[in-house]
Amino acid sequence: MVQSMEDASPTKWHLAHTTWFFERFVLAETPGYEQLDRAWDYLFNSYYQGAGPMHARPRRGVLSRPSLAQVFAYRAAVETRMREQLQAGALDARLLDVVELGLQHEQQHQELLLTDIKHAFSCNPLTPAYREDLPRVHGEGSALRWISRQESIVEIGHPAWPDQAAFAYDNESPRHRVLVPAHALAHRPVTNAEYRDFIADGGYRTATLWLSAGWETVRALGWQRPLYWSEDDAAVFTLGGWRDLDPDAPVCHLSYYEADAFARWAEARLPTEFEWEQAAASLAVDGNFVDAGHLHPHAPRTASTGLQQMFGDVWEWTSSAYTAYPGYRPWPGTLGEYNGKFMDAQWILRGGSCVTAADHVRASYRNFFPSDARWQFAGVRLAKDSA
Amino acid sequence: MVQSMEDASPTKWHLAHTTWFFERFVLAETPGYEQLDRAWDYLFNSYYQGAGPMHARPRRGVLSRPSLAQVFAYRAAVETRMREQLQAGALDARLLDVVELGLQHEQQHQELLLTDIKHAFSCNPLTPAYREDLPRVHGEGSALRWISRQESIVEIGHPAWPDQAAFAYDNESPRHRVLVPAHALAHRPVTNAEYRDFIADGGYRTATLWLSAGWETVRALGWQRPLYWSEDDAAVFTLGGWRDLDPDAPVCHLSYYEADAFARWAEARLPTEFEWEQAAASLAVDGNFVDAGHLHPHAPRTASTGLQQMFGDVWEWTSSAYTAYPGYRPWPGTLGEYNGKFMDAQWILRGGSCVTAADHVRASYRNFFPSDARWQFAGVRLAKDSA
Amino acid sequence: MVQSMEDASPTKWHLAHTTWFFERFVLAETPGYEQLDRAWDYLFNSYYQGAGPMHARPRRGVLSRPSLAQVFAYRAAVETRMREQLQAGALDARLLDVVELGLQHEQQHQELLLTDIKHAFSCNPLTPAYREDLPRVHGEGSALRWISRQESIVEIGHPAWPDQAAFAYDNESPRHRVLVPAHALAHRPVTNAEYRDFIADGGYRTATLWLSAGWETVRALGWQRPLYWSEDDAAVFTLGGWRDLDPDAPVCHLSYYEADAFARWAEARLPTEFEWEQAAASLAVDGNFVDAGHLHPHAPRTASTGLQQMFGDVWEWTSSAYTAYPGYRPWPGTLGEYNGKFMDAQWILRGGSCVTAADHVRASYRNFFPSDARWQFAGVRLAKDSA
Amino acid sequence: MVQSMEDASPTKWHLAHTTWFFERFVLAETPGYEQLDRAWDYLFNSYYQGAGPMHARPRRGVLSRPSLAQVFAYRAAVETRMREQLQAGALDARLLDVVELGLQHEQQHQELLLTDIKHAFSCNPLTPAYREDLPRVHGEGSALRWISRQESIVEIGHPAWPDQAAFAYDNESPRHRVLVPAHALAHRPVTNAEYRDFIADGGYRTATLWLSAGWETVRALGWQRPLYWSEDDAAVFTLGGWRDLDPDAPVCHLSYYEADAFARWAEARLPTEFEWEQAAASLAVDGNFVDAGHLHPHAPRTASTGLQQMFGDVWEWTSSAYTAYPGYRPWPGTLGEYNGKFMDAQWILRGGSCVTAADHVRASYRNFFPSDARWQFAGVRLAKDSA
Repeated sequence: MVQSMEDASPTKWHLAHTTWFFERFVLAETPGYEQLDRAWDYLFNSYYQGAGPMHARPRRGVLSRPSLAQVFAYRAAVETRMREQLQAGALDARLLDVVELGLQHEQQHQELLLTDIKHAFSCNPLTPAYREDLPRVHGEGSALRWISRQESIVEIGHPAWPDQAAFAYDNESPRHRVLVPAHALAHRPVTNAEYRDFIADGGYRTATLWLSAGWETVRALGWQRPLYWSEDDAAVFTLGGWRDLDPDAPVCHLSYYEADAFARWAEARLPTEFEWEQAAASLAVDGNFVDAGHLHPHAPRTASTGLQQMFGDVWEWTSSAYTAYPGYRPWPGTLGEYNGKFMDAQWILRGGSCVTAADHVRASYRNFFPSDARWQFAGVRLAKDSA
Repeated sequence: MVQSMEDASPTKWHLAHTTWFFERFVLAETPGYEQLDRAWDYLFNSYYQGAGPMHARPRRGVLSRPSLAQVFAYRAAVETRMREQLQAGALDARLLDVVELGLQHEQQHQELLLTDIKHAFSCNPLTPAYREDLPRVHGEGSALRWISRQESIVEIGHPAWPDQAAFAYDNESPRHRVLVPAHALAHRPVTNAEYRDFIADGGYRTATLWLSAGWETVRALGWQRPLYWSEDDAAVFTLGGWRDLDPDAPVCHLSYYEADAFARWAEARLPTEFEWEQAAASLAVDGNFVDAGHLHPHAPRTASTGLQQMFGDVWEWTSSAYTAYPGYRPWPGTLGEYNGKFMDAQWILRGGSCVTAADHVRASYRNFFPSDARWQFAGVRLAKDSA
Repeated sequence: MVQSMEDASPTKWHLAHTTWFFERFVLAETPGYEQLDRAWDYLFNSYYQGAGPMHARPRRGVLSRPSLAQVFAYRAAVETRMREQLQAGALDARLLDVVELGLQHEQQHQELLLTDIKHAFSCNPLTPAYREDLPRVHGEGSALRWISRQESIVEIGHPAWPDQAAFAYDNESPRHRVLVPAHALAHRPVTNAEYRDFIADGGYRTATLWLSAGWETVRALGWQRPLYWSEDDAAVFTLGGWRDLDPDAPVCHLSYYEADAFARWAEARLPTEFEWEQAAASLAVDGNFVDAGHLHPHAPRTASTGLQQMFGDVWEWTSSAYTAYPGYRPWPGTLGEYNGKFMDAQWILRGGSCVTAADHVRASYRNFFPSDARWQFAGVRLAKDSA
Repeated sequence: MVQSMEDASPTKWHLAHTTWFFERFVLAETPGYEQLDRAWDYLFNSYYQGAGPMHARPRRGVLSRPSLAQVFAYRAAVETRMREQLQAGALDARLLDVVELGLQHEQQHQELLLTDIKHAFSCNPLTPAYREDLPRVHGEGSALRWISRQESIVEIGHPAWPDQAAFAYDNESPRHRVLVPAHALAHRPVTNAEYRDFIADGGYRTATLWLSAGWETVRALGWQRPLYWSEDDAAVFTLGGWRDLDPDAPVCHLSYYEADAFARWAEARLPTEFEWEQAAASLAVDGNFVDAGHLHPHAPRTASTGLQQMFGDVWEWTSSAYTAYPGYRPWPGTLGEYNGKFMDAQWILRGGSCVTAADHVRASYRNFFPSDARWQFAGVRLAKDSA
């Protein structure tokens, strides 16, 4: 039940909250259902103002009750009831859509669960491993190549779920036309070796490489390297404990500030989310996801000649701020709070990571975090304006 | 020399800093010139890391020395020397460009000077007037009308100064093509009367109208109305002291959070900066600017049938985050820090205000502030997706 | 492992720390002993600078490892080893003294453990009971009486342990002479009923009753009643859950600020620690201690004619700041950090409480907390200058 | 009008507040008097809750109005009126007492004015001198000697003003008997040379020399030397600008934490306020006060054989917490807030300093500041328990 910082949540809370999502938004809408404990609405509501008041996020670590055993019993009870309802065909189309959303929601929390555990363990002076038996993959490195495109008008985003297409979040819709200028995209993410060059070249000591607020953050927090790196820049803390840094693996746990400063140092820039999506649209959603069981990014087993690692390994920061697509409509009702109300002072990340479920992402998927967030599995792929 | 908050600066500091800009970036580059006091580089450098270390911004109010008399003498000396250099034709093309920039820079600080004085006076329980003799204009109100446009590809931005065109900031360049979707734009900004309806309808008590961080801000800071309004929503503090609220005048001193919440309540949205610029491009830069001497927004003397008040009165929040245009290059050298390093967690405002110089703005002009900034003369114009 | 605020510690940490005390200060000094895990020195050192660096106190809640099972195993191992050493007579006189201190230390943590659990549970919206089966005692109330004494010179404090007397903390020594002026002491602590009168009379709204910093605290934190009282001033949260407030029981969970303001309202004052000790010196250490199993203060079963409840029920705030007695010497070595370094900005409390062990306190015992601490079982006994 | 920190006030505010004291507490009580501006009650009330609400202390620097000219006019008007009242014999005995208090009050602010100006100037990177023409005195150093006393019962404090004696603050009364144990007192304050030895010996790097909160402060604020010393420990910033450090002058601008740590390092302790007063009681109030015009402590022109520099030069921290004397009664009414409500978490200082008026202090005078305050002219005199 450890909560190592305000942005993270205890594992027990994740378990209860994802369960509550089904209970509150599905079961509570079915005839005759009585919630197990109405007080839990308060405890396990994350941020849905439409579902009533809620426990303060930074205080989730204080909830020593209900116990873990009670939460597991809650999960079992809700799961049983859900199974009954589904098998009985008792849920109407709207509720079936909420079930779909509940499953997507749980996948997001499965990723957060690993991300938050990693952070909590890193705060423990013992730096325990989450799993001692994680496999290690040392893939094949490759020199950076640029893949160019001409200016074009591109269809971006996803037709609106549930009416027009299979599941996608509301912030991916509507599908719309965007003029994407000529540009070039790196064939792979930036590697640990490249990032180490940035450090060795004084990257963290050179104010002019950084956004103004980024430089303030570097100084205030004493940043000198990515989160989870050892002080000699030779090892990295992973869900499998401390490991030697693999020079060919994608650099991970960067903030937007660091991704942006690195790009400036490299005389490149971050891609826009449109450039990224245009490139990803034709690719299979394939890569180092949580399903592979590595829980850490690595170079591909075989370097490819085209774009590689667009999906999996590390979320890729883009230079696109998280704003609404033209014609965006949040879902109706309380679930409309899912994405829209966070469109403020955050940046888009694309592609999923080594702790994302393979069937959770797609080319149009928009993840978002503020500029100083580092505990996510986030890296960087470079882009360039065309000559 | 009052500094009423971290974001504001003392008048004396504005005076010295704008003078220092000419001394440091122009005169210091001329042969044989010796700066009056090198220690002042530290005091009056605002944020140019390339020009050396600087006094902390929140501590500008601590500088009781140099005295105001010394600062005036400094201004006189630098002005004399500048005049000599200009009259002697001693400045090369590059330095003449910096002179141009220095003048633009000073216009920005002239606006900030009034904005900051207003804030400082509002923090004084005596709420003194900056000028007792300000004229009052009660213009002509008009019912809201929508002006529609079809989807089109639009040239946005300004050719790069100084090579390709007359002065514009680097963040307005390059001029580039953007696909602007079909939409409608309100013919005038939102009025005090309309905003009062929002308040009366519980706008500040309805969580679901607000961005998540906006709602937290409303609660943490106890916001219940725009900055400078009286508690009965009937009067407003201006540079001319307290005045009755004019129902037809544009509402002013809103944060982005408030502008956005109002738009949601009104079942509309904020315009993108591209929609705004497309509409403004063909208009004369004409309106209630500082030159008019009102120092407060008002309804136009005569309501028009087309778009009105695009320029002057109030800066208009857009839904566009402050990011780089495709192909953006900051100016070379230290002056490259002018705009680019602030492209993070801010929103674009357009059109200038009643404290902006008339010859300072243009259709492509991009102002930017973070979501919670209220002390600027900022209001809101609504937009809509086309049916 | 919940840590509900910086001042509190997780139960697991209390268990490990008190064990570590024996391991580090006793066993580690015996020949051939190897500590179970030297990394735990860092985790479970509380504040002994002489014993090396330590984990930050506010981050104790982050330690999800070692597990509770590991901590219990640690306790068992250390206890076994301690028993062996004691039975073998292997510890010299100095180490036997440290054993004595370790036992006293553990008693203090047993009290903190209950105090901290109560706070943690109170922060949980479910307000769970620590024990459902706690007995409830409604004792006999009595009207307040004053017990007067003439000016006298009094022996205060305890002869220094271990050389001169049985165990007492270093801050109780040396025993020394103090001139105590004429005064009167209340025969019992202030009751809930009396404190409710203070509230009803506007105590929390009357600035002039409060110390300056106390009034700032009242306003900043919105205090309107003692910690753990319900908003209608009719019930109180206890280790046995919510209970009706007993008008005759001592008021509990007051800060110094509240105790002091109440006394001013009552036209009395707090006693000095010398007045308190003089009165207590001749009394048996008898009362409602943790051994009674109530875990909550109550009126005595039979009201007495003399001083009552000097020991047990509630710690009693005194008007004496926590400073050194004349000739005070901290214990030698690292254990000298036990008490002396906290002699700053704290007040003395006397007498023990319903969660203190009966054999832990004595008339000379000096507890200490800062002015705003409320989570301790602290109340107030009034005193008066003699007419 | 600079306010360099929350604890300091602008010079203009000091001027207005001391004037307001006479207007509000004297003139406003006289028949027919109308205050110049009732709004100024709010601006210039410091902390008298009984005199109504007040402007927030940390925001005094925001008051650019009334102007300095207005404040001078205010002073002139109040002074004229006061003179008229005094010459006409129109004030009754009670109001004449308030006049006396007003004069004492103004002397305190005259000291603060210099203290606050020094701090403000030290925050200015130009470190301007307050006066360029201050004389420099290099007095005669002397080796430390101890002056011993036997245990005795001592009369401490001052008979209560105005009934029983000439002016003294309420916190100096009542005069009462205290048992002072045997002890020895240093014949002079600690010098810069001695304090430099403490630094050289690692004083600021040795945790075990410090109170717990003191050590936290040293680390949090990066203290390495007294306030106003240069980084090479060779010079000191004074009201006359930077000067070489005089090894024989009393060390100044220490916090209680530093005074206490130094004493521990020196194997001594701070005196109690009773030890100090007992020693001072028989001495003339004579020394380096503001009247001497040095505005900086120095060694005496001629070293004496007895106690020296008890008065003037530097305030001397004592080990006595600021608490009430037995039988203490605050003055009646609003002026009762003058001293009593600050008896919390502060330490007593004695003797006055080089910026105190000679006729302001006396042997019983109790100054008080919290443990981390350094901007006062505070130093340290050692004491010892008797062998």
